[in-house]
Amino acid sequence: MKLLRIGSVGQEVPAILDAAGTLRDARSWVGDWQGAALDPARLAELASRDASALPRIGRSARIGCPVAGVGKFIGIGLNYADHAAEAGMPIPKEPVVFMKTTSCIVGPNDDVPLPTLQGKLSAKTDWEAELGVVIGRTAKHVSEADALGFVAGYCVVNDVSEREYQLERGPTWDRGKGCDGFGPVGPWLVTADEVPNPQALQVWLDLNGHPAQRGSTATMIFGVAQLVSYLSDLFTLHPGDIITTGTPPGVGMGMKPAPRYLRRGDVMTLGITGLGVQRQAVI
Amino acid sequence: MKLLRIGSVGQEVPAILDAAGTLRDARSWVGDWQGAALDPARLAELASRDASALPRIGRSARIGCPVAGVGKFIGIGLNYADHAAEAGMPIPKEPVVFMKTTSCIVGPNDDVPLPTLQGKLSAKTDWEAELGVVIGRTAKHVSEADALGFVAGYCVVNDVSEREYQLERGPTWDRGKGCDGFGPVGPWLVTADEVPNPQALQVWLDLNGHPAQRGSTATMIFGVAQLVSYLSDLFTLHPGDIITTGTPPGVGMGMKPAPRYLRRGDVMTLGITGLGVQRQAVI
Repeated sequence: MKLLRIGSVGQEVPAILDAAGTLRDARSWVGDWQGAALDPARLAELASRDASALPRIGRSARIGCPVAGVGKFIGIGLNYADHAAEAGMPIPKEPVVFMKTTSCIVGPNDDVPLPTLQGKLSAKTDWEAELGVVIGRTAKHVSEADALGFVAGYCVVNDVSEREYQLERGPTWDRGKGCDGFGPVGPWLVTADEVPNPQALQVWLDLNGHPAQRGSTATMIFGVAQLVSYLSDLFTLHPGDIITTGTPPGVGMGMKPAPRYLRRGDVMTLGITGLGVQRQAVI
Repeated sequence: MKLLRIGSVGQEVPAILDAAGTLRDARSWVGDWQGAALDPARLAELASRDASALPRIGRSARIGCPVAGVGKFIGIGLNYADHAAEAGMPIPKEPVVFMKTTSCIVGPNDDVPLPTLQGKLSAKTDWEAELGVVIGRTAKHVSEADALGFVAGYCVVNDVSEREYQLERGPTWDRGKGCDGFGPVGPWLVTADEVPNPQALQVWLDLNGHPAQRGSTATMIFGVAQLVSYLSDLFTLHPGDIITTGTPPGVGMGMKPAPRYLRRGDVMTLGITGLGVQRQAVI
């Protein structure tokens, strides 16, 4: 299934994109796409029903983040060897973990504002197209072999990042990862049963219609199962937690001969095989 | 007022410690201590009522985190010059920002489990007694002069930290900051009207009854108003967000001649002037 949430900011309702590509209001099936509704067993039960019986929703409605009640928005850094190289950092021996704020989560097509810190407009805001993993069941100390059974589904994430805040102003990254609007998620949560191999997906991002990022999840250093297992050692993963799994090469920071950061009016378009397309204007 | 939440894990109800030191059930006043209930104006209105009319709660009940629905649990690193020195790090020019997971939040007297990563029990879990600041009103780009008006109140936080995960395994800190049980908060949220100067509070922690940390919020590098203002530039602060403001010297990592990390059976006791006392056993 392709699950999504439709409506104005803070007023989203759960919806389904049915097999015919029609948007359907899913409120008669679930309260929202969160918590126990994300359990893979519960999702399998919903998938057995006839979605075409649900009320239609007009196509023009705003799309929000496909998951509600996100407790943790976990980022993985430097998870593609060629991106680590363009960032000028060593290939990590184990997953690099950072946290994005849950308050940065927005819909896939919402505007991305450049942040202002101490009165100065950001000059180094950058893009990162990534595979997002949504947890469906509480996970603690799960093995790699079992890890994918705890995943509700997959989605596109733009891990928008301010490089000066992240890398030049102190010893932690989070300052540059959680600014308002820095977490577009969606359009859909594609349930795990429809993504047989999360390590065989093409990831792409265009800036103003020109190719910037091109990669494949096949070249991740730590795959989804490894990440879920590793993170579940560090802390309990709860339904609705989102893991954004790192970005392939082609970010603005790595451009030659000079970095190319986001400016007002830029448009990012990005997507992943089978998981839909996002489009954000920079404001 | 001293606000708290009483009950078993996940079942806490809002309560008040009244002027006579009696625990009172506050459910007839608020749904929970979260969101709009934390607005300073709302808290002032509640303070004008007669708490002694509320039902009593027995003293033996478990105390939870005094705030519900925490969206962000923001940590500030190296915010006392003498702690930066014992950690062997430079004094920061601007606040060092990291994120603790909201899933690490526990009550003030709950056990702290040593984490296990990749089958190996933690050998470098450490303590950090800190002043916690709870946001009461949505704050974005607020000035230092206005910042304290956005604070609901103050509490004790133990920013439990695993130093190997934090410092030795990669370029980010969050791996060692958000493990299960690493965020004891409470016992009380003391409303801001009862804390006239958050920069004049004694912070202390004893390990197994022996003094470890002794400090004063007077020696913070960045005070509460500066932190709230700075963070509100980075991202919108929402009611219930908790900022834990850094720790004074005396952590295990800084002990001479050798670091002293937590072991099973250790007991941490910590507190801040007027904000109550926590006690955690390490398991």
